[in-house]
Amino acid sequence: MSLPPNDVLDLKLAAAGARRIAWADAHMPVLASIRERFTRERPLAGQRLAACLHVTTETANLVRTLVAGGAEVRLCASNPLSTQDDVAAALVAEHGVAVFAVKGEDNARYYRHIRACLEFSPTLTMDDGADLVSSLLFVARGELAGVHPEVQAFARALGDAGRDALIAGVLGSTEETTTGVIRLRAMERDSVLRFPVVAVNDSDTKHLFDNRYGTGQSTVDGIIRATNILLAGKVVVVAGYGWCGRGVAMRAHGFGARVVVTEVDPVKAIEAAMDGFAVMPMRDAAPLGDVFVTLTGDTTVITAEHIATMKDGAILANSGHFDVEIDLPGLRAMATEVFEARPSVQGFRLRDGKTVFLLAEGRLVNLAAAEGHPAAVMDMSFANQALAAEHLVKHGREMTANVYRLPEELDREIARLKLATMGLAIDTLTGEQTGYLASWREGT
Amino acid sequence: MSLPPNDVLDLKLAAAGARRIAWADAHMPVLASIRERFTRERPLAGQRLAACLHVTTETANLVRTLVAGGAEVRLCASNPLSTQDDVAAALVAEHGVAVFAVKGEDNARYYRHIRACLEFSPTLTMDDGADLVSSLLFVARGELAGVHPEVQAFARALGDAGRDALIAGVLGSTEETTTGVIRLRAMERDSVLRFPVVAVNDSDTKHLFDNRYGTGQSTVDGIIRATNILLAGKVVVVAGYGWCGRGVAMRAHGFGARVVVTEVDPVKAIEAAMDGFAVMPMRDAAPLGDVFVTLTGDTTVITAEHIATMKDGAILANSGHFDVEIDLPGLRAMATEVFEARPSVQGFRLRDGKTVFLLAEGRLVNLAAAEGHPAAVMDMSFANQALAAEHLVKHGREMTANVYRLPEELDREIARLKLATMGLAIDTLTGEQTGYLASWREGT
Amino acid sequence: MSLPPNDVLDLKLAAAGARRIAWADAHMPVLASIRERFTRERPLAGQRLAACLHVTTETANLVRTLVAGGAEVRLCASNPLSTQDDVAAALVAEHGVAVFAVKGEDNARYYRHIRACLEFSPTLTMDDGADLVSSLLFVARGELAGVHPEVQAFARALGDAGRDALIAGVLGSTEETTTGVIRLRAMERDSVLRFPVVAVNDSDTKHLFDNRYGTGQSTVDGIIRATNILLAGKVVVVAGYGWCGRGVAMRAHGFGARVVVTEVDPVKAIEAAMDGFAVMPMRDAAPLGDVFVTLTGDTTVITAEHIATMKDGAILANSGHFDVEIDLPGLRAMATEVFEARPSVQGFRLRDGKTVFLLAEGRLVNLAAAEGHPAAVMDMSFANQALAAEHLVKHGREMTANVYRLPEELDREIARLKLATMGLAIDTLTGEQTGYLASWREGT
Amino acid sequence: MSLPPNDVLDLKLAAAGARRIAWADAHMPVLASIRERFTRERPLAGQRLAACLHVTTETANLVRTLVAGGAEVRLCASNPLSTQDDVAAALVAEHGVAVFAVKGEDNARYYRHIRACLEFSPTLTMDDGADLVSSLLFVARGELAGVHPEVQAFARALGDAGRDALIAGVLGSTEETTTGVIRLRAMERDSVLRFPVVAVNDSDTKHLFDNRYGTGQSTVDGIIRATNILLAGKVVVVAGYGWCGRGVAMRAHGFGARVVVTEVDPVKAIEAAMDGFAVMPMRDAAPLGDVFVTLTGDTTVITAEHIATMKDGAILANSGHFDVEIDLPGLRAMATEVFEARPSVQGFRLRDGKTVFLLAEGRLVNLAAAEGHPAAVMDMSFANQALAAEHLVKHGREMTANVYRLPEELDREIARLKLATMGLAIDTLTGEQTGYLASWREGT
Repeated sequence: MSLPPNDVLDLKLAAAGARRIAWADAHMPVLASIRERFTRERPLAGQRLAACLHVTTETANLVRTLVAGGAEVRLCASNPLSTQDDVAAALVAEHGVAVFAVKGEDNARYYRHIRACLEFSPTLTMDDGADLVSSLLFVARGELAGVHPEVQAFARALGDAGRDALIAGVLGSTEETTTGVIRLRAMERDSVLRFPVVAVNDSDTKHLFDNRYGTGQSTVDGIIRATNILLAGKVVVVAGYGWCGRGVAMRAHGFGARVVVTEVDPVKAIEAAMDGFAVMPMRDAAPLGDVFVTLTGDTTVITAEHIATMKDGAILANSGHFDVEIDLPGLRAMATEVFEARPSVQGFRLRDGKTVFLLAEGRLVNLAAAEGHPAAVMDMSFANQALAAEHLVKHGREMTANVYRLPEELDREIARLKLATMGLAIDTLTGEQTGYLASWREGT
Repeated sequence: MSLPPNDVLDLKLAAAGARRIAWADAHMPVLASIRERFTRERPLAGQRLAACLHVTTETANLVRTLVAGGAEVRLCASNPLSTQDDVAAALVAEHGVAVFAVKGEDNARYYRHIRACLEFSPTLTMDDGADLVSSLLFVARGELAGVHPEVQAFARALGDAGRDALIAGVLGSTEETTTGVIRLRAMERDSVLRFPVVAVNDSDTKHLFDNRYGTGQSTVDGIIRATNILLAGKVVVVAGYGWCGRGVAMRAHGFGARVVVTEVDPVKAIEAAMDGFAVMPMRDAAPLGDVFVTLTGDTTVITAEHIATMKDGAILANSGHFDVEIDLPGLRAMATEVFEARPSVQGFRLRDGKTVFLLAEGRLVNLAAAEGHPAAVMDMSFANQALAAEHLVKHGREMTANVYRLPEELDREIARLKLATMGLAIDTLTGEQTGYLASWREGT
Repeated sequence: MSLPPNDVLDLKLAAAGARRIAWADAHMPVLASIRERFTRERPLAGQRLAACLHVTTETANLVRTLVAGGAEVRLCASNPLSTQDDVAAALVAEHGVAVFAVKGEDNARYYRHIRACLEFSPTLTMDDGADLVSSLLFVARGELAGVHPEVQAFARALGDAGRDALIAGVLGSTEETTTGVIRLRAMERDSVLRFPVVAVNDSDTKHLFDNRYGTGQSTVDGIIRATNILLAGKVVVVAGYGWCGRGVAMRAHGFGARVVVTEVDPVKAIEAAMDGFAVMPMRDAAPLGDVFVTLTGDTTVITAEHIATMKDGAILANSGHFDVEIDLPGLRAMATEVFEARPSVQGFRLRDGKTVFLLAEGRLVNLAAAEGHPAAVMDMSFANQALAAEHLVKHGREMTANVYRLPEELDREIARLKLATMGLAIDTLTGEQTGYLASWREGT
Repeated sequence: MSLPPNDVLDLKLAAAGARRIAWADAHMPVLASIRERFTRERPLAGQRLAACLHVTTETANLVRTLVAGGAEVRLCASNPLSTQDDVAAALVAEHGVAVFAVKGEDNARYYRHIRACLEFSPTLTMDDGADLVSSLLFVARGELAGVHPEVQAFARALGDAGRDALIAGVLGSTEETTTGVIRLRAMERDSVLRFPVVAVNDSDTKHLFDNRYGTGQSTVDGIIRATNILLAGKVVVVAGYGWCGRGVAMRAHGFGARVVVTEVDPVKAIEAAMDGFAVMPMRDAAPLGDVFVTLTGDTTVITAEHIATMKDGAILANSGHFDVEIDLPGLRAMATEVFEARPSVQGFRLRDGKTVFLLAEGRLVNLAAAEGHPAAVMDMSFANQALAAEHLVKHGREMTANVYRLPEELDREIARLKLATMGLAIDTLTGEQTGYLASWREGT
């Protein structure tokens, strides 16, 4: 077999990657059942699907499912540090998928990989953070100021006609994560979207589980793998009490930490307080925290001013999509020395003599320092992705250039399948009960 | 002062009630701040407001607020067992409010009290479970079969013209609880609603707090006051994992119980499982449970068949709005003897020799065996009620006969006020952060 | 039947008390099995047993067991506020036991009741806090300065010979609680003990359960019954992280409070911190707390200076044995007004305009404002008491005047019985496993 | 510098090891303060200390402390899989310590390393599991049947006089872990001990922290690193509810697992039940568990019969000292195929078609698949070790051949130091309070 186009670290890692992919597969029964149907029905036949995702064992099983459905798939990384090189190798060598992803790639290589996906002239795109769709739209709009040179070069090479053809060929896209959905809704509001997008993150079977239990466990896991610190008795400051933030708060508390939550939303702040957590502005939390984790989807949540008041030895981590939540340029400007304290742990010696530690260069700590969300939750998330791709093939032409939620019946069907594979049975409404709920007549 | 019309247990309880009302008031600062503004602005001047609510210390403070806003208020109970007789007395004797509510009233007296509220020709109604609105609509529609004789008699006395005038006089209504909102949406779907209704329960500052933390604590409190059993090591079966159910699950677990959740919704069922609870159908849970609590808003969740398989000594409680969740006729039919084991605890000796215990006659255990939701959460719920009444006065005439949510800015304003009174500060988005969230251009 | 000597509130409460005693009995199967054996074996025949205990439903079942064993029992209260008057009545009227206990009795009546027990010339005593034993020793030693006048009068009436006879007649005593054991060990150290004492509190099946799960649940229960406040989001300061304190911390946390622990022992303080609680001196905790609970067994843990820095509305409760943990004279001296805010809640208006609230007059809040430890844990505690009484009859004459632990095999036997009645099975060591544990030869 | 005798994997790993040792050192301030004093006082000058410990970053800092105290140290591994090769290299290359330890060493090499420690003619030994002391005693007693050939060969080479000299030269030993203490007490009972041993595990500042919070976190960490499974919603069976077991139960629950506890001790079993866990025999738990963890210190806790009833995909881990808790020979005999599923995860295909997975070959999963206890708890454990060594030098000659606990004042002093370095202050007893606790006179 000749290999597909690719840029991966080392194809010799393929066997190890294949073993780990198989392990994850065993924990993704819903996706497996979809793959089995896709193999029979081939709903994605003829599609060129470009995916910009974290290249993990779970993603590999999604890609296998898309391929089983008939799609030709090209995959690039959605984050420079989240690639599992053995998985990338296995996808190329064992599954014949074109993969462009190397853990630790620099920005130029990152966008060279995005470019490889654009050059694929996809009919469907799949995003985690909206880098691929935004690049597509930059190209389509000819709006190239400030855009990465690789994308600029691609746009110029394409020419006007090519750009129109590129965008016209896209049936639709799907988006995995909160940050990407925020960007897409901004695009929708600014009327720059050019095709329908299914916000997979909006499915109940996605954000209620993957964002909460997945991010919760894997973020704490990433922090511990990076540092081996004892959480019991530590103060962990969690910035953001959305689904991801409450997952991390819950799990840090579950390991014995005292959790402080910072928020900008008063409703979420009261929830955090009534869930038993301390709530305060970051300014007040900064001098108290032993560990800080940001999960807000916003920029500059931890500023240089905050860092200046932190304890000696404070640990900073981000589990939001982009590495903008901690003011990294500000941190670097404060430091007289930067050194590697442990793998994934950089020490910053500050002018006042204190040292603070940054995990995973401020990138998603759960993916960069651990393995990302466990397969058992990605099972539902990626079942949504697979069904969203199928939905776009079936219905994309009737859909306008807006952000959609996956139809609720598909969402609940995923839940039902998941429940069954977990070995759990639940009750069913009786006719009497359904009737009662539908009637307004019965009172006291 | 001459007393207003009333039917309460004993006016001599007024002083004790007044003390407890003042105690609750000290924990309801948001409502107090609204009351202060209402006193100045009199937004409800000229309104006749009929309220069918649980007659508790918290409700008393809501009523005081409505009166401060200029409304004339008439209050009846929304449940035969939830009235605090000292509070009813205090409202009559110290606040001059017409109250019709006696703890333990029978069905006839319950509907006589509803009738007193209908006879008031209200311009606004306030409901907890929709008994008042549904009675109003039965009257208006002349749909009297199956309706309580008191309501029938009232409708006949009114005559056709009177009925039209009655309904035409209603500007709108508000509804407090999930069950009431379910009934109202059924009315909306059946096109029988005749005026706008604000579903207070839909506010974030209501259902996220009162239903979860309020019902959670007060239900466990009710069970313990009734029984004084040790929860540690017991199996508590919680039927329903909505906001109320998860509140009870969380608090029962917090007292050391092993919690089993039953559900009909697969998404909620997986959430319960990933929150660490056992999930199974009621059929399987029935033989395992030491304590059962229903919070589904549906009928016959615990059937006679379930009861037949329960352990000797099993305890049954309901914290859903109506006393239909446990099959009480079925339970009575199984019993050879019914006896009072403790106050609020009835023993049912079954034919097979086992005894099961029913708390509070299957009515809301948190109100019947304890004091209902603590003031600190009702503060937000009733702030919503007061603002909803004001909103209907201001905008009711432009609103159609549908179910509305209170405008989100009022909801968030309540949260902001609450947070401040809790002594908690939070962060504010900087201009840079707001801009970042609004932009789709910044990626990796 | 002629009634035994007694001083109780109202014998007409007997029926209600009897029902509640029966309810508790159903949750005390270990004690019931001992009662059944006692009925057959009559190991306490001929004993006069004076008991100074909290007069609750659980104690009633212990007394029934002692009577079944052949003892003649006289019972007085071990705390002025912990008596359940219906239980006292039922013991007199239905079980023929001489009871001297009235809820809310003043100090004079309290000691009149102690005197009644001394006049009984007991062969065995049973204490909860060591008031009976210390009174006995004061009398025996003729050390009457500072002793309550009732006890003084009794001693004088007795004369020297009577005193010698009194003390010579005592075979031994048992002690229920931590505070009592601390006093007894002080007596042992000072060589004033005159008979052997079994420290029931030292049994694993006592302090690991009753002190932790019993005090934990019932203290939070007492606070909520007294105040109906929402614990979620509140700061609860727990003074003392012994078995009782950690029970309260665990349960307050389980109801959503943020817990602050104060300690004097560095080991316990680190445990509290690693269990996820904030740890600080009371001086720092005082301005932060919404609710304060003392469980230290020591005096003046919350001082007037602490109270002066507390928040307006702060709530003070004690769950330690004596009402000395909060500086009550100091509090009274600070107050310009004292008023009843709710039953069991006294408001103290302070000179600076703030108000703080004291629950249950600073006495055991779990017994004074709720019903004390649930029957399920008292089952084990009182099984220890019953077996301790039997042990003293069998072996007391061979024992010296020291503080003893109940033999460990009896302790474990209680655990085994309890486990079985909870429906729980466990593993048994195989011969191979027992051998492995006994051998030092098997290594890597 | 010429290198000391050693057998390590690769000295080039020294720099990475040194960085990690420094990181751990920053979290071990109590040990650092002892090291500082040792540097000044040199209390171990002239001692030859042979240590058989897990070769981790924390141990490295202990060894540095012993060297600072003047000891010459020789270190071998206490488990074939727990060595961190970079740490071993750094100790040799950067700290000049003789280390004999390679991760994954076979039994022959393991005992060759023990022999290297025996050949050192130690004056002090330090053990984790008692392999070094038991080997010493086998040699001293000439009891060589069944002993590893390396030890036999050494004993023979030594001759009788050498053996006497060897044992006579040992001043005393220290022991780190529960299993080792159990073995030592068996030696004490069998009167084979020849020198005093300090059971460091018996210190409060050791077993209450390292065994509970350390083993708790690191065991869950090890399971997740090995498998990346989601714990939320899984059933985790914990065998043994001692300090280690309750740590794992607490942390598995903290990550959303439903925990089942198996026990042989009825008291611990009731505690587990009242802590909210399911309790049952392993026979009943076997078919329910998704993950099994043994921490009993006993043999064959999970048998082949249990494994036969497990679910397909069940995961088996051990965190007890020796790899005997799961019946590994039995498991191997059941398997038709053994394969590597992931690093540290072996799949066993069983005859019935199911597959079960064994982590870390059944050895301490927290050390073999993660990094062992975090430095923050080992700080206290190893402070005990350092002080125990000093204590033996000072007092060993006056101590008999028994198992001792470190004097309690040293234990509390460690707690006080730790608390201060955690930035935590606590209360101090006032004179009045001390007096109150010492007096038995003050009652109601």
